[in-house]
Amino acid sequence: MTGKLTVVGTGPGNPDQTTPEALAAIAAAHVFFGYGPYLDRLTLRGDQRRVASDNREELARARDALHTAASGEQVCVVSGGDPGVFAMAAAICEAIEAGPPAWRAVDLVIVPGVTAMLAVAARAGAPLGHDFCAISLSDNLKPWTVIEARLRAVATAGLVIALYNPISRARPWQLGTAFTILREVLPWTTPVIFGRAAGRPDEAIDIMTLAEADPARADMATCVIIGSPETRVITREGLPTLVYSPRSIGGGP
Amino acid sequence: MTGKLTVVGTGPGNPDQTTPEALAAIAAAHVFFGYGPYLDRLTLRGDQRRVASDNREELARARDALHTAASGEQVCVVSGGDPGVFAMAAAICEAIEAGPPAWRAVDLVIVPGVTAMLAVAARAGAPLGHDFCAISLSDNLKPWTVIEARLRAVATAGLVIALYNPISRARPWQLGTAFTILREVLPWTTPVIFGRAAGRPDEAIDIMTLAEADPARADMATCVIIGSPETRVITREGLPTLVYSPRSIGGGP
Repeated sequence: MTGKLTVVGTGPGNPDQTTPEALAAIAAAHVFFGYGPYLDRLTLRGDQRRVASDNREELARARDALHTAASGEQVCVVSGGDPGVFAMAAAICEAIEAGPPAWRAVDLVIVPGVTAMLAVAARAGAPLGHDFCAISLSDNLKPWTVIEARLRAVATAGLVIALYNPISRARPWQLGTAFTILREVLPWTTPVIFGRAAGRPDEAIDIMTLAEADPARADMATCVIIGSPETRVITREGLPTLVYSPRSIGGGP
Repeated sequence: MTGKLTVVGTGPGNPDQTTPEALAAIAAAHVFFGYGPYLDRLTLRGDQRRVASDNREELARARDALHTAASGEQVCVVSGGDPGVFAMAAAICEAIEAGPPAWRAVDLVIVPGVTAMLAVAARAGAPLGHDFCAISLSDNLKPWTVIEARLRAVATAGLVIALYNPISRARPWQLGTAFTILREVLPWTTPVIFGRAAGRPDEAIDIMTLAEADPARADMATCVIIGSPETRVITREGLPTLVYSPRSIGGGP
C-alpha cells in the first residue's frame, strides 16, 4: 500500500501569503515533517501528527517522510517560502533516487509558494524586474571556490543577485567575503537590500549601497538582494525608498 | 488627494495559487489596469471598473494607472505570476521615476505571487533546487548580444536557467539560438523542461534533453527550464519523470 507525499511551501511566513492550494494540502495530510519553526506556523487538528527536526537534517527528514508515505500514510513535508528553492523538494528527490523502489511509487505532489526573494523584492520596489539569479551562500554543500566563481560570473554578466542562507553561526564570514568580491566587479553605488521577515510583523527592509553593505545586518532569516549596474533608486518624501531594475538595458528615465 | 496603487500578482493562473493577500487587494480596488487575459481571470463586482490594454503597452498602462491613483482612486494593476518578475512592478517604478512629483506621493503596495518558474519546477520535481537564474529572451528591451553573453556566463557558472518570454510571433528564432549557444557550453544530456500553463487545465510539462530541445514546443505561455550539469532525472514506472538539481555539488546518489 502506498500513501501520498505532498511537499508544501507556506510562503514567507505571513498567513495571507500562503496559497489555498497549500492550505488544502495541509488539511488533507495526517503526518507532518519539517523544521520545527515551520511546523509551528501550522494550525493542526487533533488527528494530525507532527515530526519536527533540525534544519540541518534535511536528507534524514526526507527519508523518514518517504518511508512513512510508502507505508500508506498521507504525509506532508513543510518548507517555508517555496519548497523548490533551497528547500525540501530537492532533498526528497535525492532520497527517492537513492532509496528503495517503493519510494519511487509514492504519489508525490509539490505545491509551490512565494519564495523569500519575491516577498523582499515586493517590499522594496522591483529589484528583480529584469534578469536575476538566486545563489545560496551555504558552503556546507558546495565548495566556497564555486560560490566565489558564480558571484563573479553573474555580477559581471549584469544579473541582479538574491543571496539565500547569507549567514549563520557556522558560516560567519561568507557574506562579508561575498560583498568584497562584488565590490571588485560592481559599482560601489549599486543598491543592496537586506530583507528580513518580509510580510511578517517583525519585518525589516534596509536599503543601502554596496559600499555601505554590512554583513552584520543579516541573519538566517534575511534574504540579501544586490542590484545590477542598471538598478535604480527612487527617493520619496515621507515614503519608503524604491529600488528597481528597469525592464530594459539603459532603461531608466 | 492621493489614492492607492496596488500591483498584484495573481500567480500562474490556477485560482488555488492566488494568495489571500492578492485577493484582498483586488477586493479593495475600484479600477483595474492590466493585460486583457489577466483581467479576464478576475471576478469583479459591479462597482469595479477594468481598463484592459495590450501586453506591449506596459509603460503606457503604468502611467495611466499612476495618473488615476494620483487623482484619488483605489487602483489595482494586475500581473500574472509575480508582478516583480518581468512584469508590471518595474514598469510602475520606471513611470514613477520619470513622472510628476504627485506620482511619488501615491501609496504604492506590491503584492508578490507565485512566478511561473516556481509553478513549472514544482510540476517537474525540483529543477531549481540549487543556484539558478531567470533570464528573459525578449530582445525588445535589451540587445541580443547581451542575452547571448548572459546565457554563456550563467551556463558556464553552473546555474540552472529559467527562460521567460522564450518565443513570440515577433521573436521566432531567439529560443533556437539560445539552445545552440547552450549546447556549446553544457552537456547535450542536460535536462530541459518545457512548462506550459502549469497548474491550469491545459497544463503541459515536457521533459527532454538539451540535444532534443525543440523551440517549436514553446509558446508565449511557456517557461523553459534548462538544467545545470548537476541536474538529474529520475524515471518512475507509471508516474511522471522527476527532474531535480541536488542541494550540493556532486550531490546525486
